[in-house]
Amino acid sequence: MAKEKNVEQITDMDVDFAQWFTDIVTKAKLIDYSGVKGFFILRPYAYALWENIQSVLDGMFKELGHENVAMPLLIPESLLQKEKDHVDGFAPEVAWVTHGGSEELAERLCIRPTSEVLFCEHWKNVLHSWRDLPMLYNQWNSVLRWEKSTRPFLRGREFYWQEGHTLHATAEEAEIETQNMLDVYATFCEEYLAMPVVKGKKTDKEKFAGALATYTVECMMHDKKALQSGTSHYFGDGFAKAFEIQFSDKNNQLVYPHQTSWGLSTRIIGGIIMTHGDNNGLNLPPRIAPVQAVVIPIASHKPGVLEKADELTTRLKAAGVRVKIDKSDQSPGWKFAENEMKGVPIRIEIGPKDIENDQCVAARRDTGEKQAISLTELEKRVNELLEEIQTNLFTRAKENLKNNTRDAATLDEMKAIFNEHGGFINTMWCGSQECELKMREEAGVTSRCIPFDQKKVADTCPICKAKADTMVVWGIAY
Amino acid sequence: MAKEKNVEQITDMDVDFAQWFTDIVTKAKLIDYSGVKGFFILRPYAYALWENIQSVLDGMFKELGHENVAMPLLIPESLLQKEKDHVDGFAPEVAWVTHGGSEELAERLCIRPTSEVLFCEHWKNVLHSWRDLPMLYNQWNSVLRWEKSTRPFLRGREFYWQEGHTLHATAEEAEIETQNMLDVYATFCEEYLAMPVVKGKKTDKEKFAGALATYTVECMMHDKKALQSGTSHYFGDGFAKAFEIQFSDKNNQLVYPHQTSWGLSTRIIGGIIMTHGDNNGLNLPPRIAPVQAVVIPIASHKPGVLEKADELTTRLKAAGVRVKIDKSDQSPGWKFAENEMKGVPIRIEIGPKDIENDQCVAARRDTGEKQAISLTELEKRVNELLEEIQTNLFTRAKENLKNNTRDAATLDEMKAIFNEHGGFINTMWCGSQECELKMREEAGVTSRCIPFDQKKVADTCPICKAKADTMVVWGIAY
Repeated sequence: MAKEKNVEQITDMDVDFAQWFTDIVTKAKLIDYSGVKGFFILRPYAYALWENIQSVLDGMFKELGHENVAMPLLIPESLLQKEKDHVDGFAPEVAWVTHGGSEELAERLCIRPTSEVLFCEHWKNVLHSWRDLPMLYNQWNSVLRWEKSTRPFLRGREFYWQEGHTLHATAEEAEIETQNMLDVYATFCEEYLAMPVVKGKKTDKEKFAGALATYTVECMMHDKKALQSGTSHYFGDGFAKAFEIQFSDKNNQLVYPHQTSWGLSTRIIGGIIMTHGDNNGLNLPPRIAPVQAVVIPIASHKPGVLEKADELTTRLKAAGVRVKIDKSDQSPGWKFAENEMKGVPIRIEIGPKDIENDQCVAARRDTGEKQAISLTELEKRVNELLEEIQTNLFTRAKENLKNNTRDAATLDEMKAIFNEHGGFINTMWCGSQECELKMREEAGVTSRCIPFDQKKVADTCPICKAKADTMVVWGIAY
Repeated sequence: MAKEKNVEQITDMDVDFAQWFTDIVTKAKLIDYSGVKGFFILRPYAYALWENIQSVLDGMFKELGHENVAMPLLIPESLLQKEKDHVDGFAPEVAWVTHGGSEELAERLCIRPTSEVLFCEHWKNVLHSWRDLPMLYNQWNSVLRWEKSTRPFLRGREFYWQEGHTLHATAEEAEIETQNMLDVYATFCEEYLAMPVVKGKKTDKEKFAGALATYTVECMMHDKKALQSGTSHYFGDGFAKAFEIQFSDKNNQLVYPHQTSWGLSTRIIGGIIMTHGDNNGLNLPPRIAPVQAVVIPIASHKPGVLEKADELTTRLKAAGVRVKIDKSDQSPGWKFAENEMKGVPIRIEIGPKDIENDQCVAARRDTGEKQAISLTELEKRVNELLEEIQTNLFTRAKENLKNNTRDAATLDEMKAIFNEHGGFINTMWCGSQECELKMREEAGVTSRCIPFDQKKVADTCPICKAKADTMVVWGIAY
């Protein structure tokens, strides 16, 4: 059967990657634009994807003892100002509420860009004793940042995320928490989203406003640019001191607790699109796909076809597969294209000939490969195929990361390699912010992180030529 | 063992019900007050309760084909003004954003008080054909209404809810949806929250701004006041016309769709508190309780006690009970009071004597009754007890509703009964808003609804004496 395309084609990803991305988010019915710049509507298919992400992550958080809470939407200006680095980082990009009903407010309130100060205010109220620690909190919400240029998923004035906030009796415990949560993000990205990560620490220039240290998982997109996919921050007792949060320790001494925060947002959906998508649309990792398999009856007017298609759907549902049947009055070709656009991992075709042979045909979204499946083996083979697709998507993405990460010893080498290939470049770094800024000027890249997985790619910093023991990975970031 | 109270007692509910309520929300660690009036922090225990509510309701919505979406937080002033009744109802109580970063906005944006206009704007973009209908959407979010007087759960400037919004090809389909969703709320309140409802239609005076008809489930609290617990609105094609939303029907004619919306909020947690709570604290229906049973080791320093307590906890967890063990260094008496305050349905005590007798002791939160349970029957008896408690809470609440609902034929009778007993009063009503307002002036009550379950309690309207066929239930509402 000839494959019909959706009436409107999407832009070729190798011709205009940005336009290809924008085409997908609308054609796959993920996003609609609202009347306010930078505020995007998450349509059912995008929200179902987000719900699957939430469900897995929330389970991982709770497994580690975290509890969900809900903090207010609004922050008084005076509260935002309590921690100096933090307010410097966020105040320029917040939205301000000045009127409630018909009255002007005595103090402006900003819509939360992140909730550190709200958690601190709460902790000051409720923390008394070492018995109250640790406090391991998380919330799922939206935050606002008044960005100048905006793109669906990647940069919104409003976006959805989770923000974890924890309070600990000691610095050591808080540091362990920071690392544990980074590991959660790394595991989640690799095992569920099939997105390999580079784990590392941000340079001081790139860290979160108010943090002592920020850790990150960085992923490489199809166009070889970097997406910061999840971050975990260690605050020490800086906020605790600014907010006067103290508790009685076991020796009855008043001491300051230590704090972390960590977040992952709907920007990760942009990452899924840009890691796995192709010129036919989305390509969703089975473990996170809202629909893992779609059953499409062929020649559905012929006797027995719809019944058989229903039967397969029921069987797969019972076997735990997220399956849908498409009985609409559109042509099979239209349905093929529609489900490819939506990135459904497996398409199952069942027609009169298949029924005669007691089989169906399964088409993989990732490779396009079609295979007959005996109906006696339906559940087993579909579940195996889903795992194969998950593994294949991860393997491909890992190859993309590996093949597009290169080492450079000198600035000239760095520029030459980056101009030819783009991607990630490892170099040594002396640790000065001056050299970091110079690298941006000279090569057009920013430091993505100081990878945990270090190697010695040279002896000196490519900028200042000073002896250098630290390797940084550089790239262009979304 | 003598029962120790928490250091601070709560106010007696029969002395000062409002203060009793406020005491519970803080002492049971449900709520903390933020720095902004009317913005309450949902602490882990309250949020866990809300998550259980979400989980059940979300499942019921999806079972009926609804999908979750996320609409923007902000609404341009011009968009809010498109439907006249709607803006008249909400504009006086919204919060206005006037600045983004350091710039003044060209148009003020309000923080959503509800999202009808956002859904309409979206539907205008994406609705084309009869094939796109119905659109059965829901979202879980928070909304803001700039109320003058505020109370935790019952009236917040910010509150959490779900708002369902649906679009249908015909008026009939939309009307059926409105009723179906009211039924979902009624089933949920009665079967999960053990809160019996009066189902009915709101009078025009009490209906939602912009709706043709509003349906409600009203519950009676311990103090005999009414809590509007869930509402379902039928809009006809009024919004569709105001927003110019049209679709091609099967005859290729452009026609207007018909619309509904329905919501239930965290105010229902206030309802759970005020329906089942007592002078020892919360009293949670087992089906919705974050912790259904708490295991408390007695004389836990004695050999074998902690091990046995752990074993019971593990067994109950495996049997699907939401169970916790309290191994903290507090006294058993302190723990008893703490878990009563939190309304944990069953407390399980296990000490050396119990271990000798191969039993534990289960104390019911609802009746205070204690009983020995043979350890061989642990899972079976605990699950039975949970069901018994659920049923008992519902039966009690139903008796409260029945015993405090009375009929009145005349205004004098109505005033006499209400002054003596409070509660709900049924009278006939002629249907005029004048008489409805007069009833408020004269008797201090508002119409709660026109119950579906009608009876003829008199022949005439108690105010104007005109012949009347409609029965209204009156009361004082939260």
